[in-house]
Amino acid sequence: MLDIKDFQTLTRYTDSKILMLVIDGLGGLPHLQSAKTELESANIPNLDKLTHESTTGVAIPIQHGITPGSGPGHMSLFGYNPIKYVIGRGVLEAVGSGIKLANKDIAIRGNFCTINNQGMITDRRAGRISDNNATKLIKRLSQIKIDGIDITIKHLKSHRFVLVLRGPDLNTDITPTDPLLNNLPINHANANSPKSKKTATLINKFTQLSLDILKNEPRANAIVLRGFSQKPSIPNIGHTFHLNPIGISLYPAYRGIADILGMKVTDQGEDFSDLIKVVRNNFNDFNFFYLHYKDTDSAGEDGDFDKKVFSLEKLDTFIPELQSIGFDVITIAGDHSTPSVLSSHSWHPVPILINSNIPTSDKSRHFTELECKNGDIGQIYSTDIMPITLAHANKLIKFEPNTPL
Amino acid sequence: MLDIKDFQTLTRYTDSKILMLVIDGLGGLPHLQSAKTELESANIPNLDKLTHESTTGVAIPIQHGITPGSGPGHMSLFGYNPIKYVIGRGVLEAVGSGIKLANKDIAIRGNFCTINNQGMITDRRAGRISDNNATKLIKRLSQIKIDGIDITIKHLKSHRFVLVLRGPDLNTDITPTDPLLNNLPINHANANSPKSKKTATLINKFTQLSLDILKNEPRANAIVLRGFSQKPSIPNIGHTFHLNPIGISLYPAYRGIADILGMKVTDQGEDFSDLIKVVRNNFNDFNFFYLHYKDTDSAGEDGDFDKKVFSLEKLDTFIPELQSIGFDVITIAGDHSTPSVLSSHSWHPVPILINSNIPTSDKSRHFTELECKNGDIGQIYSTDIMPITLAHANKLIKFEPNTPL
Repeated sequence: MLDIKDFQTLTRYTDSKILMLVIDGLGGLPHLQSAKTELESANIPNLDKLTHESTTGVAIPIQHGITPGSGPGHMSLFGYNPIKYVIGRGVLEAVGSGIKLANKDIAIRGNFCTINNQGMITDRRAGRISDNNATKLIKRLSQIKIDGIDITIKHLKSHRFVLVLRGPDLNTDITPTDPLLNNLPINHANANSPKSKKTATLINKFTQLSLDILKNEPRANAIVLRGFSQKPSIPNIGHTFHLNPIGISLYPAYRGIADILGMKVTDQGEDFSDLIKVVRNNFNDFNFFYLHYKDTDSAGEDGDFDKKVFSLEKLDTFIPELQSIGFDVITIAGDHSTPSVLSSHSWHPVPILINSNIPTSDKSRHFTELECKNGDIGQIYSTDIMPITLAHANKLIKFEPNTPL
Repeated sequence: MLDIKDFQTLTRYTDSKILMLVIDGLGGLPHLQSAKTELESANIPNLDKLTHESTTGVAIPIQHGITPGSGPGHMSLFGYNPIKYVIGRGVLEAVGSGIKLANKDIAIRGNFCTINNQGMITDRRAGRISDNNATKLIKRLSQIKIDGIDITIKHLKSHRFVLVLRGPDLNTDITPTDPLLNNLPINHANANSPKSKKTATLINKFTQLSLDILKNEPRANAIVLRGFSQKPSIPNIGHTFHLNPIGISLYPAYRGIADILGMKVTDQGEDFSDLIKVVRNNFNDFNFFYLHYKDTDSAGEDGDFDKKVFSLEKLDTFIPELQSIGFDVITIAGDHSTPSVLSSHSWHPVPILINSNIPTSDKSRHFTELECKNGDIGQIYSTDIMPITLAHANKLIKFEPNTPL
């Protein structure tokens, strides 16, 4: 397989413009009663019409059976081997929320959670507390001082926050305090190697000081931390593919990925129609637009089949407007499946379509898992989506090693 | 691709129970008259019903065009890269027959064969001589003594035996004496490097002494040796996937693979119904059951189409009983194809089905090569079968690097 670095000599700059619309958690599974998936149940005439005019397939995000987190799911979509190029969750959240990370900073993803008298976690998300409440609690946690360390703590959404530590001799090689399941105690951070002892001690101290501050809160009476990470060294997406890219999402984590890969990231707005305005306003200045739609994943994670169907139908109403903007290539894909029947991300293949002026024999008429599976592209790995998209945009040159352009 | 070692942090122990039924040489090719494969010709209502309720696909054992031996075919099924993790044939047979190998022992697979006056092999299997006859000959060969070397020789089935050499400075880097085809002479063992000269000399001496002992036998008047090998270093399957595994087969080689991977192996019985009793008796103590069915491969190797059809129909009658035991996930797969029309193993994709309580849109109704190919899983590598099976059993956690469980 080609490494992403090989694409620097395989791609060329052209004016052709690409939209990559990522529908988060796109793929689904059949409802137990209707035996139809969310996509099969949704009334999505515009996506179906676009499917009719496109080449389609299904994509395996990482490899068969492996359920991706948001980070690796997106890395694959952008053509990066998700096993080789890893962005830690903490870094993702920090950069996405607008924190400028220095190279040695440790970024950490935190949750407010609820613990009972015995110290057992009863809710890892503290009842998904309101932004308002969480913001006040973050202000109180911001008063924590530890000698020799700069601490930045920033609220994300609901129960989520990001913590950044800056100081000498910090190291990410420690275990998370978040057990990732309810009915377990908060873990001690343990150093996996002598050089990470200082960081583990620091994390345990911060956790203890937080408990003291939060102890009288009805729900958000504790915190759990995970995703200890530093800025990775990853090839710039624009440089690699000769693109001028912009990343557009309502959510910090996805803007974070875009930023780390070297996409332009701007102020984004409040809802998806605002994002489309950002696309339109920036249309002349960029030639690769990563546009992220989140509602499908949230509904799937909640196990709400009807809500996921509704979120697909809502997205469908925006398709004509997106088509009217004037892209040469529109790729619609998902970072992973989030079947409502599983209430979680899953390993199942995700439908894709690629629309361009290149003719296709594709017979798919509906944007569904099954029809796309039988489409022209067939079953591919998500890392193949970017090269196929670039090919449709005429940005890839012939592979003829030793005869570079 | 993830290495099998990565799965140690990607899997978790759960109580859910997996049956992996391996139908040896499962895949076939169309009969020249009927144009139907063995699976398409067989009356297998229970497997068809299970297919209807499962997700299906086809698996490439090694890579396209490559015909696997039993060892690599099975390694893939268990999730091990068969090119990286190699068990020699001799080791396989030795361990499978109950020989306890020390780390530096050389294990060798032997055949009794028939040679003519000119020393040409006329039958590499000595007319598949009876176990009774072979046992007597093995007793005579066991009298061979060579200074400084412990020699163990053990009969397997029919013309097959295993030879184990223990002593200083032994090395496997020599050529086999078995030419693998009839109408060729027995080869000299040649050292491929200076450090294997001693072993080559030893093998040639043993072969010569065997010829002297067997010279008056009507059929088994010589031996051929191959598969010179030592115990490999391979990750333990239970440790890797957080499983408590047991391997159940009537044949030593397959029990050998199970043993080397760290599965429990017990006394197994005389026929397949005995194996099912072993499954049932051990159901509470294990959560991964590798169950091996051999008759399909033997019939295919013999080029006996009808017998392979019959062996599939016989297996089919056991399916309801296997289903009644109470597994959470049943995976049915093959280590490779053995088309009767080829009378040998082949490179063709092998049908698979995975049955669990996770909904599927799969439309396959018959357990055949063609219908499974069009199933939900599509065409995969056999190494993907284990991860998909573990995912269906809820034993895999989300792939989110830097956030280990």
